[in-house]
Amino acid sequence: MKINILQDIMSANDRIAAKNQQLLEENQVIAINIMSSPGAGKTTLLLETLRRLKSKFKMAVIEADIASTVDAERIIEEGVPATQINTGGECHIDANMLSQALSQVNLKGLDLLFIENVGNLVCPAEFRLGVTKSIMLLSVPEGHDKPYKYPLMFTTTDAILVSKMDYLPLSDFDMPLFKQVVSGMNPKARIIPISAKTGQGMPDWIDWLESLLEKKYK
Amino acid sequence: MKINILQDIMSANDRIAAKNQQLLEENQVIAINIMSSPGAGKTTLLLETLRRLKSKFKMAVIEADIASTVDAERIIEEGVPATQINTGGECHIDANMLSQALSQVNLKGLDLLFIENVGNLVCPAEFRLGVTKSIMLLSVPEGHDKPYKYPLMFTTTDAILVSKMDYLPLSDFDMPLFKQVVSGMNPKARIIPISAKTGQGMPDWIDWLESLLEKKYK
Repeated sequence: MKINILQDIMSANDRIAAKNQQLLEENQVIAINIMSSPGAGKTTLLLETLRRLKSKFKMAVIEADIASTVDAERIIEEGVPATQINTGGECHIDANMLSQALSQVNLKGLDLLFIENVGNLVCPAEFRLGVTKSIMLLSVPEGHDKPYKYPLMFTTTDAILVSKMDYLPLSDFDMPLFKQVVSGMNPKARIIPISAKTGQGMPDWIDWLESLLEKKYK
Repeated sequence: MKINILQDIMSANDRIAAKNQQLLEENQVIAINIMSSPGAGKTTLLLETLRRLKSKFKMAVIEADIASTVDAERIIEEGVPATQINTGGECHIDANMLSQALSQVNLKGLDLLFIENVGNLVCPAEFRLGVTKSIMLLSVPEGHDKPYKYPLMFTTTDAILVSKMDYLPLSDFDMPLFKQVVSGMNPKARIIPISAKTGQGMPDWIDWLESLLEKKYK
């Protein structure tokens, strides 16, 4: 009985996700869902990405937070439109929350839409949203053992950015082991080590985004 | 209707939490619920704490993980009994999961029971467990702005350990600002900066634990 109810909720979510996907495709918008633990650097990566791409592409951001609007304010200061989702205590975005946020975004002519999910390595991976790609950040200080503990997040994302690479000298993060484990779990995922502070890996990340946009214009 | 169902679930949880609390008190066990983001250093803190206290007190650990048993194995290597809760995808422990785990722990003569919750700053704070104290770790690399984003966690914990203090020189973590914000939200919480690597703050944390045990023997 309990399982049936859960399945109903999930398929209702998937139906709305399919509508989100259709809406985004009709408007030729590349939508990127960004997930990570709290404090892994999602907002910092986003701000740095907007700075590098805002002269070339039309972009917008949907910011999800449990209660605050601090991240959306920082995006708007960067000159990029931001829409806030307050999840009201929920630890993830679901397709319905995204659908409501999309109704407030001007999708006409938009190239790239970033969706910053709630900081959480568990629940956000369980809800289809209808986006083009889902990515995650794992910061070096969190440790290379996280794929074992949060397997769904590592197996359902299209790119895994290892952030805060500037902390590597102080850390025992084992990059070869991490790459080996992730490649076994999710062979298609692109692994990109980055540091928003030093700029390391940012060109690889930007190239990855631009390759998605190129396909759009083919 | 939806809210009514949620309230029913929560009060069922609270009833079981009250039973857990009674069981722990009957056995004079001090139970500490440890929460944090993934990778903030819960297991490292636990291992270091067990090393410092195992000659003085009888201790046990309940380890919660979504899927793996790696942390419980490390605890057992330290010579302390560990019981594993696999939450089966759930992003938190609830009172019922703890109740089931408690039935497998030898509570007779036990002084200290540590419960390592799932790495998550959202959901674990929503479920009463019936423990003596709840604490959280916030690691320096996560940033000092987290209380604004995850307010429930910061307002419901009895002690807040700022971990990975050895990363402070590389970070822009503003400790005075952090202390000011947390004191405003949760004036009773004890804030303890620590580094399991350098040992900084470990005596303060151990003192805090021992003061709980002293009350028990009064």
